[in-house]
Order: sequence, then C-alpha cells, then structure tokens
Amino acid sequence: MRIALLIQYDGSNYYGWQIQKDPQTVQGHLERALSKMFDRTIGVVGSGRTDSGVHALGQVAHFDIQNANIPSTNIWMALNRDLPDDIRAIASQAVGDDFHSRFGAIERKYRYQISTAQNVLNRNAAWYVRFPINVEQLHSVSQLILGQHDFSSFCYAGTETENMTCTIESANWTVGAEGQLVFEVKGNRFLHHMVRMLVGSMIEVARGKWTVGNFTRLLEHPDRQAHVITAPARGLALMQVTYPEDIQPQWQPVEEKLASESERG
Amino acid sequence: MRIALLIQYDGSNYYGWQIQKDPQTVQGHLERALSKMFDRTIGVVGSGRTDSGVHALGQVAHFDIQNANIPSTNIWMALNRDLPDDIRAIASQAVGDDFHSRFGAIERKYRYQISTAQNVLNRNAAWYVRFPINVEQLHSVSQLILGQHDFSSFCYAGTETENMTCTIESANWTVGAEGQLVFEVKGNRFLHHMVRMLVGSMIEVARGKWTVGNFTRLLEHPDRQAHVITAPARGLALMQVTYPEDIQPQWQPVEEKLASESERG
Repeated sequence: MRIALLIQYDGSNYYGWQIQKDPQTVQGHLERALSKMFDRTIGVVGSGRTDSGVHALGQVAHFDIQNANIPSTNIWMALNRDLPDDIRAIASQAVGDDFHSRFGAIERKYRYQISTAQNVLNRNAAWYVRFPINVEQLHSVSQLILGQHDFSSFCYAGTETENMTCTIESANWTVGAEGQLVFEVKGNRFLHHMVRMLVGSMIEVARGKWTVGNFTRLLEHPDRQAHVITAPARGLALMQVTYPEDIQPQWQPVEEKLASESERG
Repeated sequence: MRIALLIQYDGSNYYGWQIQKDPQTVQGHLERALSKMFDRTIGVVGSGRTDSGVHALGQVAHFDIQNANIPSTNIWMALNRDLPDDIRAIASQAVGDDFHSRFGAIERKYRYQISTAQNVLNRNAAWYVRFPINVEQLHSVSQLILGQHDFSSFCYAGTETENMTCTIESANWTVGAEGQLVFEVKGNRFLHHMVRMLVGSMIEVARGKWTVGNFTRLLEHPDRQAHVITAPARGLALMQVTYPEDIQPQWQPVEEKLASESERG
C-alpha cells in the first residue's frame, strides 16, 4: 500500500531535501527512520527538492509498504520518535497507487520572509535587510509575474530543466508583525531558485536600485544568463502542495496525547 | 568609562544568562568576547537573569573599561565578530557612572508566545499547545493582574527574594499570524518564573480547567506553596528594559555595512 506523509522541517542544518553524498538531508533522515520503524529498506519520494537551508511547513512525500502493522493515520506519530526535532511528520494516510507526490502535484505554495529589524529568533527563517524598502512598490511589481511566463531569467543557470514556462496563480507581499515582510506565491510549478531570484529582483526595485522596467525586461526577454540577485535560502519555505481533488490526501492528524510539558519548579 | 550594551539572544542552547559552573551562559560568552577584544578581564552586569531556554530581544548590560581605543557606539559591531550567531549585540554606547543596568531599571517588558498549530520553525520560540483555548477569556483574566499585587503564588518556591510585591502596568493577549497567541506584559519588576506561572495559570482558565475564581484566589491569597503550572521557558522573551529618562541610553545602532548575503547561483 502507498502512504502519503505531510512533513515540516527547519532546513538550516540540512543540505536540502534530496539524498546526496552528504547524509544530512531530510529525505535521508526520513528513509532511515521509516526503514528502522518497518525493519526493511524504504525509499521516500518527495513532491520536489528544496535547496540547502530552505524550510518546509507543508512538504508532501510518499512511500510504499506491505503489511504496515500500524494504522496508516498513526504512522506520522511513530515516525516522529526517530526523527530529529527539526524534522516533524504532521500527518499520514493511505492513498491510492495512482497517487504520486511529485508527478501528481498541480500547485505549490511558497512563502518568503524578510525581516527589517534585527531579531535573533528569526535568524534562520528570514532574510534580514538593513536598507529601506518601499512595500507598495514591492507588492505592485510582484503583480507583474501573475499568469503564464517563460521564467528563464529567474532560473539557476546550471539547471537541466527544458520547460521554463510556469503559471503564477497568486503573488502577495504583506506586512506582518514587527515589520516582517511576507511574500506568498502560488503556481503550478517553480524553477530551480525561481522564488529566491524573483524576491531578489523585486527587492532591487523596491529599494530603488532597479526600475520596474529592469524587472519587466527580464520577464519579457527570457535569458538564462541574466544577472539576477538570489535572495538567501533561509527566508524561503515550501508551504503547501496541492493535488487534483480526487487524489488530494485529506490530512487528518490524530491528536497527540498532550505531552507533559509543564511543571512546577 | 562605563559602556551599556543592548543584547539579543536565542536562549535555546544556553543555561540562562548568568555564569554558573556550566560555561554555556550568555554572560559567559559576552565576558569572553569582551575580554578578548580589549585584552583584559572584563565583567558584565546584566539587567536581570533569564532562565535556561528563555530568550531576549532587548536585554541590557553594562561593563567598565579604561581606554577603549574604539568609539563606544562601534563596540557592538566589533563584539559580534566574537559572539556565536545566537547571541547578538544590537547597540552600545557610553553612559554615566551612575548608570547600573540592574539597579537602575524601572520597568521591564516580557513577551510569551503560544503556537496553536504545529510549526517547526517556531519550536524553540513558542509553546505549542494542542488543546482549544478561549482567547477572550485569556485576555480578560490577564486584566486581573494589573496594578500592585503580592505575587507570591506566582513565584518559584525556591527563590530567596523577600519582597513579593510587583506593579503590573500593562498586560495584553493578542492573536498574531498563523494563530499565534502573544502575551505582552510590562511591570516594574518580575519574580523568578513569574511570567511563566502567570501564563500557565491563565491557560488553565482559558482551556476550562480552572475557574476565574481559582486564579483570583491565588492573587488575593498569596501562597508560595501554591500549585501553579509553569509554562515552558521557550515561549518567553525579555523584550525591553527601561531606565529613568535622565539615564536611559539613547540606543543609536550604527548601520552595519550591508553584508554580501546574496549571489547569483
């Protein structure tokens, strides 16, 4: 049977999602924990890679198992016992064999956080910028990316992908608590480094270093060699992965027993 | 001359502010970094201790130095080079000899964060509660602590302090982004574990385990042996320390040179 997992991780200490030579990847930790739990070798497929230092609050993955010997909706809890505390399973459930976390995904949502005041508690989850930013301009330039575009100018030059066309469904900059600037963007797919390069470029406009025209030109004249600033990985988080209605997992996390986290003392 | 420092730290990896047998304290790191920087033994006095795991976004400290050989408003920048990245100096400046970070303080502000949804990025900066909370009740019960009270019932039983009277100037619960519950409280002084025990008790009321009467009784009948829940340290942060107008440091952080944090790649 196939099990889908909903996963969160703080990417600060990992070389991204995908297993590489370095064992410190999120996928690596999940596969080790699942293999230990079920006492057999288990491979995990994620909805997409995240780069070194990038976080996820709604990553989706799947794996196959015969005779799980544990209700599928309880797997996430058992799994957490063998995961480091910066990787958390949030929910799990049985899905059909036609569910594929990567190829089935039709929409992804990312968030990028910028901090305009020093805050040591956000140091791994936001890009701290020390220059003044025009937030209205930031939001206004972000509206230019809506719809279907060739995003070659906003793609890591070394990528092997051929199809550079993505459809952006929504893009919004908002001002959060303590002067945080939060960018949320939804699209059918995203190229390697695309959100970070879009953020880096929008910031160039909003701090007055680029004109809106500079930005528009990159969109209208796709160029994989374009010189574009890549915003730091730590501000980025994968928030949500969506599937067609008939295969979308209906995540139902079982309530964890309230851990005894408080004491008199 | 006397130098005042404005300090932030993520308390997760430290045994609190004050130097103990264990060298992993914030004060210990500051004294080592300053002693190295000025090539002589330097002791640092903080506005107050914070417990193991408690954070600070506005801790104040001072130290004395002769012939600093560096403008006092630049010390914080130089200091950061020798501090771990979870301890940051934010500002520094010369103050009069009558400034004392601890005895001079007339007001302190704390923040307590509660997370009602799992968020791995907040795991060290918020108390994640899995039960439903009545936010209106939470705020309403918090208004009972305003003014002057004997807070013996909300003080760590092992404390050596004799004076248990504190004046609370403001107390507010608000709902932040992603269902965060944020408590901000300002007062002239706080007892050991006081904010955490107040939060623990207010939560008991707001989740329906205590009546408002249970809470009121603890305030009206001070009892150092009272059984009170202590909310976890990780949700708490010291936000601000205030001094009388004539000695209040006018923090003027010098703009750091924009570090080259972004690159194409």
